[in-house]
Amino acid sequence: MAPPHHTVYDGANQNGTVVELAAQEKLQRPDVLNADDFRRQGKQVIELIADYYGGISDYPVHPNVTPGFLRKLLPTEAPACPEPDAFTSALQDVRDIILPGLTHWQSPRHMAHFPASSSTVGALGEALAAGINVNPFTWAASPAGTELEMVVVDWLGKALHLPNSLLFAGGGGGTLLATTGEAILCAVVAARDQKLEQISVGRIGDLVVYCSDQTHFALVKSARIAGIRRDHCREIRTCRANMFALSPMDLHAAMKADVEAGLVPLFLCATVGTTKTAAVDPIGELCAVAAAHDVWVHVDAAYAGSALVCPEFRHVIDGAEAVDSFSMNAHKWLLVSNDCCAMWVKKPRTLIAALAVEQEVIMTDRASEGHDVVDYMDWNINLTRRFRALKLWLVLRCYGTDGLRDHIRSHVRIAEAFEKMVEADARFEVVTERMFSLVCFRLRSPEPDQSGSEETANALNRQLLEEVNAVTSGPYTSFANVGGIYMLRWAIGSTLTEERHVADAWKVVQERASAILCKMESINASRA
Amino acid sequence: MAPPHHTVYDGANQNGTVVELAAQEKLQRPDVLNADDFRRQGKQVIELIADYYGGISDYPVHPNVTPGFLRKLLPTEAPACPEPDAFTSALQDVRDIILPGLTHWQSPRHMAHFPASSSTVGALGEALAAGINVNPFTWAASPAGTELEMVVVDWLGKALHLPNSLLFAGGGGGTLLATTGEAILCAVVAARDQKLEQISVGRIGDLVVYCSDQTHFALVKSARIAGIRRDHCREIRTCRANMFALSPMDLHAAMKADVEAGLVPLFLCATVGTTKTAAVDPIGELCAVAAAHDVWVHVDAAYAGSALVCPEFRHVIDGAEAVDSFSMNAHKWLLVSNDCCAMWVKKPRTLIAALAVEQEVIMTDRASEGHDVVDYMDWNINLTRRFRALKLWLVLRCYGTDGLRDHIRSHVRIAEAFEKMVEADARFEVVTERMFSLVCFRLRSPEPDQSGSEETANALNRQLLEEVNAVTSGPYTSFANVGGIYMLRWAIGSTLTEERHVADAWKVVQERASAILCKMESINASRA
Repeated sequence: MAPPHHTVYDGANQNGTVVELAAQEKLQRPDVLNADDFRRQGKQVIELIADYYGGISDYPVHPNVTPGFLRKLLPTEAPACPEPDAFTSALQDVRDIILPGLTHWQSPRHMAHFPASSSTVGALGEALAAGINVNPFTWAASPAGTELEMVVVDWLGKALHLPNSLLFAGGGGGTLLATTGEAILCAVVAARDQKLEQISVGRIGDLVVYCSDQTHFALVKSARIAGIRRDHCREIRTCRANMFALSPMDLHAAMKADVEAGLVPLFLCATVGTTKTAAVDPIGELCAVAAAHDVWVHVDAAYAGSALVCPEFRHVIDGAEAVDSFSMNAHKWLLVSNDCCAMWVKKPRTLIAALAVEQEVIMTDRASEGHDVVDYMDWNINLTRRFRALKLWLVLRCYGTDGLRDHIRSHVRIAEAFEKMVEADARFEVVTERMFSLVCFRLRSPEPDQSGSEETANALNRQLLEEVNAVTSGPYTSFANVGGIYMLRWAIGSTLTEERHVADAWKVVQERASAILCKMESINASRA
Repeated sequence: MAPPHHTVYDGANQNGTVVELAAQEKLQRPDVLNADDFRRQGKQVIELIADYYGGISDYPVHPNVTPGFLRKLLPTEAPACPEPDAFTSALQDVRDIILPGLTHWQSPRHMAHFPASSSTVGALGEALAAGINVNPFTWAASPAGTELEMVVVDWLGKALHLPNSLLFAGGGGGTLLATTGEAILCAVVAARDQKLEQISVGRIGDLVVYCSDQTHFALVKSARIAGIRRDHCREIRTCRANMFALSPMDLHAAMKADVEAGLVPLFLCATVGTTKTAAVDPIGELCAVAAAHDVWVHVDAAYAGSALVCPEFRHVIDGAEAVDSFSMNAHKWLLVSNDCCAMWVKKPRTLIAALAVEQEVIMTDRASEGHDVVDYMDWNINLTRRFRALKLWLVLRCYGTDGLRDHIRSHVRIAEAFEKMVEADARFEVVTERMFSLVCFRLRSPEPDQSGSEETANALNRQLLEEVNAVTSGPYTSFANVGGIYMLRWAIGSTLTEERHVADAWKVVQERASAILCKMESINASRA
């Protein structure tokens, strides 16, 4: 690192102009971007990350800390003048107090959330983009940045077997955003403005959006942000018998009722791989219902979209030719680090109509005059954009679609193996059919409620979850409470997760279950 | 890099299940996250970036390319199976075809946009965050991630001399978002929901937002996204005599007229450092006008907010104690790489009321029970979030507030020096008073229009801009068209820009001006 700069100002004078300095006190400009420092400090960072990956199994997935633990360790303000070799000290603090206070999303025992799957190439692609640090908000502001984005969204769309109509190659087009929330919001706003243009700009209060009670809260949040009334968000009830998928018949009924009440159906968010149970809504049939009311259909495939790289999963989006927009998070299960949500739209002009800039901008660009260039700032909420295309391009190029298939299939296979482990222990059951790499399971209650209620079983599984998550080396586990049933949920997808991790983690669950059941029995025995 | 994985599947069978493999063909799982590969490939990336910084002056700031240039060079789909050592080849492509096709935001001759100022520590902070790749959307999902964010937004707020009421330490609080657009959208939505709760949820069509004709288009875009009618966005006219600042009197008149028309004033976006001329709206007086109508005041200090680290600039936010929210882009001029917009709010509960999740989430967390933890997903649009706090913390810690002041002051001093250069050439004028490090200047017309119109001068400067930007080694320059005057605009702020770059760039402008004026004279002479 450059030697710490000197403080050459002791403040400014009263009228806000910079204090004049004697010649020997010339402004010491901090040397903060320099190739040699970058080489030296960059290697320190690479070593730190490599060590982290090498030792990640040693960390408990979730740290045993209480709120405020880190704030108490840090000063209440930034230093005025950095300590000598501040960068090395700061990296030591990363090792000593920050890493031990994190929930480790790259741990092979992190099963609680859909993954944030890292890869060497994905993480380094982000590092490279941060180093180059361009802002591809218009074509002119970074031509190669914009064009690489256009190329890779088409590459990704083809690799995922999306309909051609969503790709640039087929008249649609895609972009890379931060999150699914952003993608859904952009789609809702595009749909809303298109609809209001048709019916009257004042009727925003009549618009209705549709989803199921399993849809990610991003839909309702987006609709609310876009000014749709909260009581015009229809979260249609699903049921276990139908695998918690949205029923086209129920959707039809809801839309019909709204139309009869003088309201205007606007938007449907269908999900491929819901958060709680990875349920799959029937895209084709839902689109048919939506079409009758000229409703925009968005498909949220945040997690399961990555699985579409395998042709054996293509059927889950049958009928997608009819959708208006589609999004998936390449940062979840496709080895691209946070954040990288790909969104495709069939008619980019609707997106642009809602989100484009009206003002004259401060740049003109002769090279793009007369060309139909893509200015990505008109495709999303943000002006400043990172060069996300770089990491996605590197992942696709360096692992190849075959490599990504193997990656997905290996997790699916581990999930299959885990499902068999659960089925082999009669005390447990797999509650919903395994989809992709998500397994939802629970401990059966040894004493079923006579009323048919699930109360006892639910309490049992709540206790089991708590005890499993309290085991320091244990698997980090989440729950889903669906259709009245409380179940545990393991999403297999962390890049480093292998079958042995799942087998070990399952032993932890079995042991905790045995302890709980044994305690229950002894209590019952003492009562009897 | 790990040896390219083998393709062990030749597809899937018809009913969508994975093909069974013979024992010797066991699934070959790609080895995509491994400490040794990360060390080796990471060092390649560090070398590439260091070389880029070392040689950045050799690139033209803006590449001489036409739309489609890169798309034509790349295949139309991702490879199935990667070539041998694909990572090294890909990095070679970055050097050969991607870097030469970028607009170089780190070039010392990039004056066109407000900077995207890189630093060694800022870029490596992003690399580190990408390697660790956690998702701090709730406290539990990454305790140290959430707490470091809370700590650094307070550090930054104090360093920028913000009122205590906006900091966690003073009952407010901050967060790190991607962009100002996102910050304004969150603020508008919070203000909107608070107001509709008071007046009636159906009156969204009556709400009005206010800004000046100099306000960044992010305000109107955010308001439109939030469902505010386009014709209820008041862009109040400013004038040169008032330095293009928003007049409190005009704001008062606009609000009064709206109230009299039965409309409801909602939101004011005041700017400190407008995009076109770095104008500063008078915060304190505007807040007083807004208060009379219970209007939410947001301050957008995207660019100039960084300058607040210098006490001599504190006066530009006099009266900020009264604002409801404030945002600035640390990625613009404060050495933190894209993206890092800090937003503070006085009453976090209003933000949370508008943006919080209603659904039961899939995790419970015992450690945070009974504590008032911050779950940052409720403070913004997105669920997935990067660990942005890390890079900001590193920048503050390793450069110190004194270092950041020196950095800002050195650019301000260069801008002052440039202003003097312009003033020393009688053919030119500085059009608006220099603010911070932005200089707006133009070539005077040798033949002023008799009507007092600026037509000839504007045409002259349009031509000058075009010719300057056509010089391969020239400074990348933008324009502003304000109050009928077309001017050139240089924002000094790229980390590597030194006075010598500006002096050289100024020679280019002078030479192009001489050539244009000379040609004009000879045409006039031949006409006479």
